[in-house]
Amino acid sequence: MKKFKLLLVASLLAIVSMAFLTSNINAREAERVALNEVQGIPANASVSSEWAKYYPRQYDSWKRTKEGDEMEDLLKKKPQLPVIWAGYRFSIDYNSPRGHYYAVQDNVNSLRTGAPVDDLTGPFPTACWTCKSPDVVRLMEEDGELEYFTGKWARYGSEAVNSVGCLDCHNPKTAELAMGREYLNRGLEVAGLPRFEDATHQEKRSLVCAQCHSEYYFKKTEYTDKAGKDQTAMVVTLPWHEGLTAEGMERYYDSIDFSDWTHKISKTPMLKAQHPGYEIAKTGIHYQKGVSCADCHMPYTQEGSVKYSDHKIGNPLDNMDRSCMTCHRESEDKLREIVHTKFERKEFLMEISMDNLAKAHLETGRAMELGATDEELKEIRTLLRHGQWRWDYAIASHGSFFHAPEETLRLLADASEKAQQARISLVRLLAKYGDAQYMAPDFDTKEKAQTLAGVNLQKEIEAKMKFKETLEKEWHKQAKAKGLLDEANRKDVDLESSYFKKK
Amino acid sequence: MKKFKLLLVASLLAIVSMAFLTSNINAREAERVALNEVQGIPANASVSSEWAKYYPRQYDSWKRTKEGDEMEDLLKKKPQLPVIWAGYRFSIDYNSPRGHYYAVQDNVNSLRTGAPVDDLTGPFPTACWTCKSPDVVRLMEEDGELEYFTGKWARYGSEAVNSVGCLDCHNPKTAELAMGREYLNRGLEVAGLPRFEDATHQEKRSLVCAQCHSEYYFKKTEYTDKAGKDQTAMVVTLPWHEGLTAEGMERYYDSIDFSDWTHKISKTPMLKAQHPGYEIAKTGIHYQKGVSCADCHMPYTQEGSVKYSDHKIGNPLDNMDRSCMTCHRESEDKLREIVHTKFERKEFLMEISMDNLAKAHLETGRAMELGATDEELKEIRTLLRHGQWRWDYAIASHGSFFHAPEETLRLLADASEKAQQARISLVRLLAKYGDAQYMAPDFDTKEKAQTLAGVNLQKEIEAKMKFKETLEKEWHKQAKAKGLLDEANRKDVDLESSYFKKK
Repeated sequence: MKKFKLLLVASLLAIVSMAFLTSNINAREAERVALNEVQGIPANASVSSEWAKYYPRQYDSWKRTKEGDEMEDLLKKKPQLPVIWAGYRFSIDYNSPRGHYYAVQDNVNSLRTGAPVDDLTGPFPTACWTCKSPDVVRLMEEDGELEYFTGKWARYGSEAVNSVGCLDCHNPKTAELAMGREYLNRGLEVAGLPRFEDATHQEKRSLVCAQCHSEYYFKKTEYTDKAGKDQTAMVVTLPWHEGLTAEGMERYYDSIDFSDWTHKISKTPMLKAQHPGYEIAKTGIHYQKGVSCADCHMPYTQEGSVKYSDHKIGNPLDNMDRSCMTCHRESEDKLREIVHTKFERKEFLMEISMDNLAKAHLETGRAMELGATDEELKEIRTLLRHGQWRWDYAIASHGSFFHAPEETLRLLADASEKAQQARISLVRLLAKYGDAQYMAPDFDTKEKAQTLAGVNLQKEIEAKMKFKETLEKEWHKQAKAKGLLDEANRKDVDLESSYFKKK
Repeated sequence: MKKFKLLLVASLLAIVSMAFLTSNINAREAERVALNEVQGIPANASVSSEWAKYYPRQYDSWKRTKEGDEMEDLLKKKPQLPVIWAGYRFSIDYNSPRGHYYAVQDNVNSLRTGAPVDDLTGPFPTACWTCKSPDVVRLMEEDGELEYFTGKWARYGSEAVNSVGCLDCHNPKTAELAMGREYLNRGLEVAGLPRFEDATHQEKRSLVCAQCHSEYYFKKTEYTDKAGKDQTAMVVTLPWHEGLTAEGMERYYDSIDFSDWTHKISKTPMLKAQHPGYEIAKTGIHYQKGVSCADCHMPYTQEGSVKYSDHKIGNPLDNMDRSCMTCHRESEDKLREIVHTKFERKEFLMEISMDNLAKAHLETGRAMELGATDEELKEIRTLLRHGQWRWDYAIASHGSFFHAPEETLRLLADASEKAQQARISLVRLLAKYGDAQYMAPDFDTKEKAQTLAGVNLQKEIEAKMKFKETLEKEWHKQAKAKGLLDEANRKDVDLESSYFKKK
């Protein structure tokens, strides 16, 4: 009988606990539902601070992308780069990326974007704002996509003023995940994949990132504008027509005879991989196991009883407790070590492939000096084009060594193989022209490499400084006048050119 | 009140179920304990069928390694191999491995082991039996390790007659995991790792495999035998003195000026990686997460109420329900596809590195013909030695593409890089000797490749057939007379030379 009583008490205790738990769950659910309901419609949706009153936690965490303020001069760190990119503006300036908070200003500050003097000067088209600002979503909506993609970059200097923010990924009316850049849907369509609207919620948690963290090119598109005038738009286009692989995109680019630039030293029609982060991640084990970008880069966070997505998008290793450890059961230290080994393997093969590519360009240049013909160099240049494409594709998205380590290593190895094949043919060709023992000059510092690439750095810096004193100030004034800009969110980004701040 | 009664009934039901479950667990535990107790001591422990009466399930599953009877002519499949291995007996014959059941006979049948005519003829030392038979554990115990490692392979033809079996991994008195090859402990010691006896049970589940699935070389060891005579043993030695990595072992081999053979075409002092399966697996994610070899290759199996380790060691993809699916939650098809992609990446880089290595050997041969000196070829030969070592290390253990895909790809890429570096130098050298445009001859069939490698295949086959008609028959007779051999377990293995059976 005593046993029975004990059992009864235990059972009752269990029931009370469960009831308590249920009530707690219900309370949380009510809160969750309330949070997920539309809180309000931001008046000026491209200005992220307008969303703050409805989504204060998301906004505050977004603002913390400001903490990702390290900037490293990658041309200094990897002096093969200016040689590899000779004739392309990446050979002038290329830094490690800062947080989303800085995207607009880093675009303005980069020596790559040059020093326009008015709305009509280049060097780049408007498309170069596309991934920097939610104002682009607004402009495409206001002006139409083709109109947005027409003209020079400087045209929107006073319009694209808010850095990557809320409107880039959210519908301002419903706050749902949304995608204001229609070229992504066109890319998905040519690849035979579901459009954004038809994708699952989990897929959308990667696709909003894929708007920008993808490979693209500027497709020359003729059209007639509203005024009946013939225009040419340079439309951001995802080259996914033959699949989302390095080889598929290469086939596509080859088929349309596309090149981003002609290499200054080797006269090779080159491809520049942009940042195919989405595509390469799709070949990796995390994506294949259903992990989205947001799962690790925007982990769910608990504050009191509220759970929300952390909008401080950055390195998941900075908050492993909320990113990795929700699935993994190893210690953080052990996982960190595993990631570090992946990084080192990539670095090792990346160095090898860059060395070989740089040397192959220089050896091609030497062969040309000695009289080698385009016909003799045809196969070599194809190897260089394809090899460098693979190298760039493998590493341009930075995180690929982790997202898809095997695919990254495979591509880097193939890049190097192609460069080496070119080099073997080049020694044979140089032998024919009497210089088999030619050794490419040193490119072990940024200075040497930029000299080989014909970069006049001082001139670029001076022009940029002048631009910052004049046109950029004008843009700023205009943006303020138009009420487009939340000045608080440009703090600490533009005091001086980031060029002089970086390590 | 009705509610209360219902609760009471539910609680009582739960208690009854739990009691039932407990009793079931207890019954199983009793059975498990009984099974784990020593069942008996096999009289003739090197004969696996002697263990069968005590461990019938383990024995039956071991016997099923007979089903792994596919044999593919890898020299035919990858005709770069005879060129790469020119001057080494691997260039004569190299097949994909069959199940443990066939290990002894495949060793006897291989053209590699040649055609001895008596106990004193080679080409190989006794060490070549070491991983083929539990008789080796017996011989080392009976004769002592140094004595066992003395003399020619043919010496033990009538002794090493049972194929890889129980005694290789189990103590015949306690049936516990055991390791009868002391060189493994010496390897662990020089690497600073715990000896077998001090390892955890989970580690032992890999270490028993590591006895054979590791890199080794034959260390020339002088000693005085029991009769007071000076002898030279060729002792299996694990080169783990500078760590269990490809680079560490290479440093060790270089430091003792060791080479397995001198390449017939390029006269390079070469290293042959054996099968560093254990070492390379240690760099992979499964091992790092604590998975042992046995977890996947000998998965736990349920028969009625008995659970035991499946001793049909083979491809885990053949029984994914018991290997992969105990941890993974994807579908078998999806996992299979992931594994297949890993395989394809490896194949791709493996082909590239083999092509470059083979060409580099041939180009070196050409440079020598034209008068290139050893001094001129020194650096090139070092690149060839190190490059080929990496290639071989990366793939010799077959499963590396899965066990450690990233390390495998890294090593293959580095192998190719080194071969290509050699080739670039070789074109420059050939240019100096007036033949910059030299192209290595074709090696796209086994026949062409063996001709380049100077293999007289017909002679090897004839000698082997004669050996099979004479000495091998004698070995068989003697082994039967000594009572060492369970003939039932040699069935279907030696009707004819496997050389003629393979695809």
